[in-house]
Amino acid sequence: MPLMTAEQYENSLRALNLEVYMFGERVASVVDDPIIRPSMNAVAKTYELAHDPKYADLMTARSHLTGNRINRFTHIHQSTEDLIKKSKMGRLLGRMTGCCFQRCVGMDSLNALSIITYNIDQKHGTEYNQRFKAYLEYVQDNDLVCDGAMTDPKGDRSLPPHQQPDPDHYLRVVEKKDDGIVVRGAKAHQTGAVNSHEIIVMPTIAMGKADRDYAVSFALPSDAEGIVYIMGRQSCDTRKLEDGTLDQGNVLFGGHEALVVFEDVFVPWERLFMCGENEFAGPLVEMFAAYHRQSYACKVGVGDVLIGAAQIAAEHNGVEKASHIKDKLIEMNHLNETLYCGCIACASEGRMKPSGTFSVNTLLANVHKQNVTRYPYEIARLAQDIAGGLMVTLPSEKDLTSSKTRKWVEKYFKTRPDLQTTDRMRILRLIENLTLGTAAVGYLTESMHGAGSPQAQRIMIGRKINMAEKKRAALTLCGIDE
Amino acid sequence: MPLMTAEQYENSLRALNLEVYMFGERVASVVDDPIIRPSMNAVAKTYELAHDPKYADLMTARSHLTGNRINRFTHIHQSTEDLIKKSKMGRLLGRMTGCCFQRCVGMDSLNALSIITYNIDQKHGTEYNQRFKAYLEYVQDNDLVCDGAMTDPKGDRSLPPHQQPDPDHYLRVVEKKDDGIVVRGAKAHQTGAVNSHEIIVMPTIAMGKADRDYAVSFALPSDAEGIVYIMGRQSCDTRKLEDGTLDQGNVLFGGHEALVVFEDVFVPWERLFMCGENEFAGPLVEMFAAYHRQSYACKVGVGDVLIGAAQIAAEHNGVEKASHIKDKLIEMNHLNETLYCGCIACASEGRMKPSGTFSVNTLLANVHKQNVTRYPYEIARLAQDIAGGLMVTLPSEKDLTSSKTRKWVEKYFKTRPDLQTTDRMRILRLIENLTLGTAAVGYLTESMHGAGSPQAQRIMIGRKINMAEKKRAALTLCGIDE
Amino acid sequence: MPLMTAEQYENSLRALNLEVYMFGERVASVVDDPIIRPSMNAVAKTYELAHDPKYADLMTARSHLTGNRINRFTHIHQSTEDLIKKSKMGRLLGRMTGCCFQRCVGMDSLNALSIITYNIDQKHGTEYNQRFKAYLEYVQDNDLVCDGAMTDPKGDRSLPPHQQPDPDHYLRVVEKKDDGIVVRGAKAHQTGAVNSHEIIVMPTIAMGKADRDYAVSFALPSDAEGIVYIMGRQSCDTRKLEDGTLDQGNVLFGGHEALVVFEDVFVPWERLFMCGENEFAGPLVEMFAAYHRQSYACKVGVGDVLIGAAQIAAEHNGVEKASHIKDKLIEMNHLNETLYCGCIACASEGRMKPSGTFSVNTLLANVHKQNVTRYPYEIARLAQDIAGGLMVTLPSEKDLTSSKTRKWVEKYFKTRPDLQTTDRMRILRLIENLTLGTAAVGYLTESMHGAGSPQAQRIMIGRKINMAEKKRAALTLCGIDE
Amino acid sequence: MPLMTAEQYENSLRALNLEVYMFGERVASVVDDPIIRPSMNAVAKTYELAHDPKYADLMTARSHLTGNRINRFTHIHQSTEDLIKKSKMGRLLGRMTGCCFQRCVGMDSLNALSIITYNIDQKHGTEYNQRFKAYLEYVQDNDLVCDGAMTDPKGDRSLPPHQQPDPDHYLRVVEKKDDGIVVRGAKAHQTGAVNSHEIIVMPTIAMGKADRDYAVSFALPSDAEGIVYIMGRQSCDTRKLEDGTLDQGNVLFGGHEALVVFEDVFVPWERLFMCGENEFAGPLVEMFAAYHRQSYACKVGVGDVLIGAAQIAAEHNGVEKASHIKDKLIEMNHLNETLYCGCIACASEGRMKPSGTFSVNTLLANVHKQNVTRYPYEIARLAQDIAGGLMVTLPSEKDLTSSKTRKWVEKYFKTRPDLQTTDRMRILRLIENLTLGTAAVGYLTESMHGAGSPQAQRIMIGRKINMAEKKRAALTLCGIDE
Repeated sequence: MPLMTAEQYENSLRALNLEVYMFGERVASVVDDPIIRPSMNAVAKTYELAHDPKYADLMTARSHLTGNRINRFTHIHQSTEDLIKKSKMGRLLGRMTGCCFQRCVGMDSLNALSIITYNIDQKHGTEYNQRFKAYLEYVQDNDLVCDGAMTDPKGDRSLPPHQQPDPDHYLRVVEKKDDGIVVRGAKAHQTGAVNSHEIIVMPTIAMGKADRDYAVSFALPSDAEGIVYIMGRQSCDTRKLEDGTLDQGNVLFGGHEALVVFEDVFVPWERLFMCGENEFAGPLVEMFAAYHRQSYACKVGVGDVLIGAAQIAAEHNGVEKASHIKDKLIEMNHLNETLYCGCIACASEGRMKPSGTFSVNTLLANVHKQNVTRYPYEIARLAQDIAGGLMVTLPSEKDLTSSKTRKWVEKYFKTRPDLQTTDRMRILRLIENLTLGTAAVGYLTESMHGAGSPQAQRIMIGRKINMAEKKRAALTLCGIDE
Repeated sequence: MPLMTAEQYENSLRALNLEVYMFGERVASVVDDPIIRPSMNAVAKTYELAHDPKYADLMTARSHLTGNRINRFTHIHQSTEDLIKKSKMGRLLGRMTGCCFQRCVGMDSLNALSIITYNIDQKHGTEYNQRFKAYLEYVQDNDLVCDGAMTDPKGDRSLPPHQQPDPDHYLRVVEKKDDGIVVRGAKAHQTGAVNSHEIIVMPTIAMGKADRDYAVSFALPSDAEGIVYIMGRQSCDTRKLEDGTLDQGNVLFGGHEALVVFEDVFVPWERLFMCGENEFAGPLVEMFAAYHRQSYACKVGVGDVLIGAAQIAAEHNGVEKASHIKDKLIEMNHLNETLYCGCIACASEGRMKPSGTFSVNTLLANVHKQNVTRYPYEIARLAQDIAGGLMVTLPSEKDLTSSKTRKWVEKYFKTRPDLQTTDRMRILRLIENLTLGTAAVGYLTESMHGAGSPQAQRIMIGRKINMAEKKRAALTLCGIDE
Repeated sequence: MPLMTAEQYENSLRALNLEVYMFGERVASVVDDPIIRPSMNAVAKTYELAHDPKYADLMTARSHLTGNRINRFTHIHQSTEDLIKKSKMGRLLGRMTGCCFQRCVGMDSLNALSIITYNIDQKHGTEYNQRFKAYLEYVQDNDLVCDGAMTDPKGDRSLPPHQQPDPDHYLRVVEKKDDGIVVRGAKAHQTGAVNSHEIIVMPTIAMGKADRDYAVSFALPSDAEGIVYIMGRQSCDTRKLEDGTLDQGNVLFGGHEALVVFEDVFVPWERLFMCGENEFAGPLVEMFAAYHRQSYACKVGVGDVLIGAAQIAAEHNGVEKASHIKDKLIEMNHLNETLYCGCIACASEGRMKPSGTFSVNTLLANVHKQNVTRYPYEIARLAQDIAGGLMVTLPSEKDLTSSKTRKWVEKYFKTRPDLQTTDRMRILRLIENLTLGTAAVGYLTESMHGAGSPQAQRIMIGRKINMAEKKRAALTLCGIDE
Repeated sequence: MPLMTAEQYENSLRALNLEVYMFGERVASVVDDPIIRPSMNAVAKTYELAHDPKYADLMTARSHLTGNRINRFTHIHQSTEDLIKKSKMGRLLGRMTGCCFQRCVGMDSLNALSIITYNIDQKHGTEYNQRFKAYLEYVQDNDLVCDGAMTDPKGDRSLPPHQQPDPDHYLRVVEKKDDGIVVRGAKAHQTGAVNSHEIIVMPTIAMGKADRDYAVSFALPSDAEGIVYIMGRQSCDTRKLEDGTLDQGNVLFGGHEALVVFEDVFVPWERLFMCGENEFAGPLVEMFAAYHRQSYACKVGVGDVLIGAAQIAAEHNGVEKASHIKDKLIEMNHLNETLYCGCIACASEGRMKPSGTFSVNTLLANVHKQNVTRYPYEIARLAQDIAGGLMVTLPSEKDLTSSKTRKWVEKYFKTRPDLQTTDRMRILRLIENLTLGTAAVGYLTESMHGAGSPQAQRIMIGRKINMAEKKRAALTLCGIDE
């Protein structure tokens, strides 16, 4: 039964028994919690669109294992065309949800593991790849959401894992048993964690011999015993608890992050994909990071929403024909499409790895992500410029509906006779949402740090550049014989 | 009794009877409302510091009317030194409060009116300047906070005031009586409105003859009959209603804006500073705007706070010695001090007007403000870069204090052994507050639109530049005789 | 005999009889003129590399007309793979020559005409496409260089062609004869004109009915009677006349532009590709422009040279390990690779036109070119930062070789004992060449204006964006039903 | 006879006997050499304007030693007003000459020495300050041009002076005699060296005890025995040797730099201002650098010329009313005036030193200079955007005057009927001169490296910032008690 419906997906989440905390209390029903639910809606959209013929080509693929039609989020890329479609799917969903739809991190984990497990086996004669393929088939057949869990809390960043004052600041093996291992630690910033069926754990940095116990990768059901979730809070999160929807800006979708704690959790052997092969920790991180940096294609779609909203705000203000407004919208589009070029180019320049999986061009994926740490901020700045100050001085929805204040709010925020004050307020709240509110978390700060902070990309760019070739060209042209 | 204490100021507000609405309901006690109170605290700081000998030179001045020592916020600038001190006072208070302290708009209104009322009288033989001086003495003697109310709702921005479908979309005179006039309309985005004793109304654009009824300027007590306030909401505003303070980021201060509605409000003649002299509407706007663009000196102080917070966050992360971190902090400082140069230079290049008041250099004040629409966004982006993703994935204060989750939050967000998890959370929440939360409204969006949106400054720059001189220089140098 | 050698190419130029002027005098031998020759060398490189097996895949293609292996510069793109190879060929040659190699403008003209002649025929029942294909086969079979001549002098830019005070300010048909037409006018900024065998003329803007006589496109041998060339001069051009080579920076290659005048030149019917079908002038301009904006892939290769040179300069200065130097080099690479993403993406997203030719994605080609008007300037700025001030205060090569001054120059510009002063001077002169000298003309100013000035791209971006889709997304998300 | 005329200045140079080399040959007459002379013209302007009543207030000052009216370039700043006038004088002369007028480096050396000689004496009981004052009086009375010589060749930059493989890579004392010392070494990048009467030598970095012999400062006549000058070459320098003036762009003025070699030059005691007090080398560098960073006020004046030229070019093209052109000109002005704010603010915030001299605010001077390393490049880029591609494809002046080509050049580069083709060419050549030619050396590359490369300013910014104050503000606001 590959290809669940959105409804089946929601029901499948209800069947889980997650231990989730928010505001210091256990969450009774994750799916129904008003703060969490919009993030579930966003994931559900990845199921819904897979059934829409208009989007089937982007949203689904043919499994190379089973030949079944599967959701592209569970697919292993078989060509550069697959990689390009992944970028386009990301933009599509970003535009459809205006937020982080959370499912790419699992897809990127699966693809990275399909390559690295193969490579480990080649060197060590292990059977990780076989295990992985069995697991992959299970994920594809059941159309599951996987959380890809990489980032450890890291404690004192100037020390390696095994020298941390608290040895649990990186997730590690604390016991080996006959039937599996026991792990302890935590993974921070886990996007979409409580909307996932599975958690795929990977190490977060390159590791030396002494960090062997930390070089561990595995998959578990998200409600495995000992896994605890503590929700992160977002700017304006509690607006979702208020009556009405206008002040939320995005009335349908949102994102979430959580701290995931592993309190001595048992992992059976068949779900282990790396255990002690520390020299592969770095390559796994790099491979995952390259895929995941490509995934920031989604921000182009969120940019589409913000551009559309800014255009509408300009129309409400009656200034859409002013040359400086048109120019700012062109600049927003220019920056947004420059990002699009990045996620297309790193896909188009992808290559087949020994395992048969296609990977993106690492250099260009890093270049793309580096731009993602910059341009959304400038696009957001321009959106605020166009929106006008009212975006942050607007009264609440209650002021619009209250009998006491409605007359003034209606009257004084009216602009063109053919447009509604309510609509103007809605579009301004959406821009607020994307530049200061819950969605700004995803569009801005996570654009900065997700898939690695800017400096991580700069280091990779420095490493992947062929400087020798460039020097040779310069020497030849200025007449220096080497 | 010039120079009220902070306590006296709070009591003076209690004595007012303002009609304030928020979330559709009338606010029972403005001073005690938890959402509004932090903004009152910020204004109170302008009183408190005036009593501190360390800051007396910046915070106070000698009245040119009475010779009394007065709060600088009620002072008419008598020299470029006064103007420079104004910029320094703004930076000081920005650093002390980390937000908008709201009192400069009144100061700028008073100074602009001191010049323009004089100029009107010179042309029309009116007595506005005398009235104004009497009013100024009252403000100085009672150490009052004045709201300077300029921005009308504007309706359809492609039409002048008198052609608006709703004639009240610009504030206007609806009746003239023996003892005064009656006005109707509204002023939007009124910073600090409900913390003010007085409201000074000014027109918002240059006006033609047909807009004569809109060319009106006056002052009224903030609780005059018919004046209604509707509070604007800010990103994360309701965190101030939650238990605890950590999640607020700035635990002491905030800002606010309100829509101020004038429902057929009576203004006595002696408080009228312009009434129908439409050709002076533009000059008044320009003069106020120049002063108020200088006032964005305050953002340099808020920038100081954000830079300090980023430095501390880097120390918590143990990365303060990484070269890229140091370089980013230098860049933040460089941008912040470039802003400082702007507000000092436009003051240093100020000049005396016919009325005796010193005004800033208009060109440079506009250049300064234009930079304020850009650099705080980049400083904020760099602060988010340094802070790390945890800034937006951090659990709530309740998760830190709850017996259920405390152990995990404490353990996994701990970094260096000598530093507290709580302190790390506090500093990250402060950065969130300044870049996404209530203070981002002031530091970012109001930096964009306050005292005029970017395009307004560009138009002024284009107008104030001496292009003829530049062309002449070019022609001479390339050998073209004119 | 497709695929001439570089030597054959040079000889083929000698066989031409061009009327070329420089410094007010007729040029005796175009090929041997020391100022022009480096530009011939650059074109020759496109012939030389086509014979190198290492580059054959990029440099050559299979003709869709004849099946012969031809130089890619004469090829009509048959797939997105062809378009991607075109971008890569551009980068390769930019890196190999460090300048403009001039041959892409002809390739872009041929491809644009292959599409537009087809479209004209579809509408008008003409036979332009057939003529064009015959001409194309001639070009491919003889491996010719074509100059693509589009930009008219334009006179008063606020007037259309037919209203110009001087009707020749746009090239036009002045007479129709039995066997062909006679044209008059000029084309400005003609890159590589005097290194070309053929000139392909196209209109430069969209045209109305009244401009019919200006809607003309044709091809002629470059030495057809009545065609006159006046060379443009470049920064530092006369250094090529000096003894020695060091001060030239690039000792091998250069570029050139010329004004091409058509003094009542006869064009036979079989070489006419448009004549009066004014509604296709705009589409031809747009199609050519899109291809040619992609062609700015070459600047990525020139960027490679500048980055390599900056790295070497840093090594000579002994500062290559300083963190700020490394970071600047990473930034240069980041910007350069962002450009690369653009020219790859617009190719990868290309599509087949009705004629069978593959065209690039117009939106992304414009986005790419827009970035080319910005990033080379920043890369150049960073190169100057790394190079140090010596780049502009260095004595001449003669000071290095003169017995009078050699000892001082050798001694005082020496840095590390293992490196030569001469080499240091060579690399600094190369950076000077690329950022201020003859190559700066191509790397900077022509990056700005070639294939259309920045505003032309912005207009196209504004036009090609699907704003309706973006607005729809925003409306849905904030809860507004359309 | 303070205040020489321009003519007297030229004659005074003729009286010198400088040993100057260019292109490997000794220069016969420095003053009459066509490549050097425009730079002499620029210095002469500083004499000429001092006699013009319109500029007397800026160009002259009252000597604090003699009470005589002197050229401001020989003045020791006695107030912040003096410092502000220095900035304004720099802008004025930059606008008048469109290049580097070379005389500020001497002024900055004199002012720095007035402070540091005093401080050395305070510590060591030496009499440097007295000697310095005698020297200063001589300079003021004779209205001399002083070259301030700081930058040593530096050899291997990773080593201190005394560890260099070649000990002369920093200028040093090689012998001490009864009547003075003998020095050897060189100073690179010496702006205006051969237009100077005097050379003031200073160390270039902070020095330790072991570098004592390198900690030396003194003044000498520019034609003292053993001093040799080797001219640096500039982009387009030899255009000044061509017939005609049009292609030079700036037909009047230029700049120059030279390598100055000291071949065992004798310095008498009375001209020594530091000799072995190594701990004052750093402070002298810092003080000079602060003053000299302020001096980049001149680039604002050069920016004025470029803005004026761009405006005229737009008018020739008939596009001066296009909104994007107007906006680019506003941006150029905005950036240029932001620079102006920097040089005014660091002067306005200046302070009196123990010696009585007023120094600029070091932090803000560094901030100013840092912006000078960025904005002129962007202003130049925008100027090239507005100018159009013709700026780099324009035929030579000879093509305009030759009977063979004149008709075509005149005809096809004509735009509006009321404007001359010649004038259009002149203004484009001026823009070329400022962005690629001889003046680009000063406006761009020397803006980058003069008075210290960008990283030098960043280090100073990092050092001068009061981070403790900023951290304290942040801690207080987020509720952390220190």
